[in-house]
Amino acid sequence: MNGHVTSGVWCPTLTPLDSALEPDLPLLTEHLSWLLDQGCQGIVLFGTTGEANSFTVEERKRLLEGILATGFAPDRLIVGTGCCSAGDTVSLTKHAIANGCPRVLVLPPFYYKGVSEQGTIDAFSWEIDAVADDRLRFFFYRIPQMSAVDITAAVIETLLERFGPLIAGLKDSSTDRESVEVLCRRFGERLDVLVGSERFLKRALECGASGCITATANVQAPIVRALFDSPSDEAQQRATRARETYDALSMIAALKAATARRTKKNGWLRVRPPLVAASPLGE
Amino acid sequence: MNGHVTSGVWCPTLTPLDSALEPDLPLLTEHLSWLLDQGCQGIVLFGTTGEANSFTVEERKRLLEGILATGFAPDRLIVGTGCCSAGDTVSLTKHAIANGCPRVLVLPPFYYKGVSEQGTIDAFSWEIDAVADDRLRFFFYRIPQMSAVDITAAVIETLLERFGPLIAGLKDSSTDRESVEVLCRRFGERLDVLVGSERFLKRALECGASGCITATANVQAPIVRALFDSPSDEAQQRATRARETYDALSMIAALKAATARRTKKNGWLRVRPPLVAASPLGE
Repeated sequence: MNGHVTSGVWCPTLTPLDSALEPDLPLLTEHLSWLLDQGCQGIVLFGTTGEANSFTVEERKRLLEGILATGFAPDRLIVGTGCCSAGDTVSLTKHAIANGCPRVLVLPPFYYKGVSEQGTIDAFSWEIDAVADDRLRFFFYRIPQMSAVDITAAVIETLLERFGPLIAGLKDSSTDRESVEVLCRRFGERLDVLVGSERFLKRALECGASGCITATANVQAPIVRALFDSPSDEAQQRATRARETYDALSMIAALKAATARRTKKNGWLRVRPPLVAASPLGE
Repeated sequence: MNGHVTSGVWCPTLTPLDSALEPDLPLLTEHLSWLLDQGCQGIVLFGTTGEANSFTVEERKRLLEGILATGFAPDRLIVGTGCCSAGDTVSLTKHAIANGCPRVLVLPPFYYKGVSEQGTIDAFSWEIDAVADDRLRFFFYRIPQMSAVDITAAVIETLLERFGPLIAGLKDSSTDRESVEVLCRRFGERLDVLVGSERFLKRALECGASGCITATANVQAPIVRALFDSPSDEAQQRATRARETYDALSMIAALKAATARRTKKNGWLRVRPPLVAASPLGE
């Protein structure tokens, strides 16, 4: 982990919603403090688990500002900013940097299918050029099972060469363990590589990863943190088993339901369509 | 075709771009007039072929306003308004209606994978309720190979029951011919069903479709129009053969390249990343 700026267990926070399905800032603020108390080194705002793409650009900006206004430390945040349109990605990225959050997690444009490596390189380059800010710390968000666009070693290599220190990391949420290990080995010295699941964490750390950004940290951060701190086989097995409960379910709704049970606050059950709540409110 | 409000050959227009990759309104205006001269009954603005999801909400609103300011008849337009976030879909839909274009073509939210029928119903219902305008004429945009979310008969049936005349049609761009025929037969009397490819057009018309919205109308509308006007086997074969050239290529870039050749305007070659131009500008 020598020289890694971003390491450890980061939680892609759930986004609690009020009865109008708008983000519920008081509930979120409570959750973020609790996550840090549970051992998370930091928070990813607006990852897939946070239902990022169900919110407008304005809603996303307002929530980040709201969190920071509560006194939350911006250096504990990575902000998801990758949208389908470059204009939206650039707008969210500039806003995050202006608010003291230079670390952004960027999906490739995810509407088109069969996108070429060149197309992905062009899209990221266009966005980084338009942001035009040396403070930028860009994290690739690799999640091909959801975005349907891969981020290959060739894409990363080309952008590292073109933009140097602006390229800070990779969140690798691919479910293909072998390709994750290949990218950890290849880029672990030059980038902060955080894997998207604790299932791979021990092996990924051995291959050069600096940590993980995992949805289940919303409910069981201490187990993941223990694995990160002492990556033994036993710790890995324990974390893998603890995760299985959620892998078998619709993850986001299930994590919200678990949080509703823990906090005894049924508002936590709410999701934005097209997701469906794990159980009706009031049950 | 008795009683169909929207029928015939509609063209999902390409979006020409200037050197800053912003929409080029003069080129687009020329293209729209030419398409109507070529026999298109109307235009779909911001379909997949128009690179809709590569533009921000503001860019999309501005372009619609620009087109209408040139005197283009709003009743010749269907406007694509479906985004990942309901707020964006609602904002674009309200804007289209306010500008005299009540017919909107709406993708389901397309980031999540494995979305349930209930989730899709919830998402569309939420959007239609929020638009809250009886002038709305809602067209489902079924294109599962791109959006990764299907629009099933159960989804359509539920929303028809819930919203009645606000549900006006279906653009069915599925590549699965059999499912297209099933939906044409089931909904052809109650909705304007337009298929997404002229390859299915003769058969779809026999099954109750009212027409098609096909990307290749950007370059060969007369062939598609002839098939619509006289749906013989020969006309179908001719249209299918003419389309094959483009099916074999990256469709949007290829259609833009063909338009650049026809108009001798190289600006037409430009696409927004992650698409890649068919050949470099200047060649």
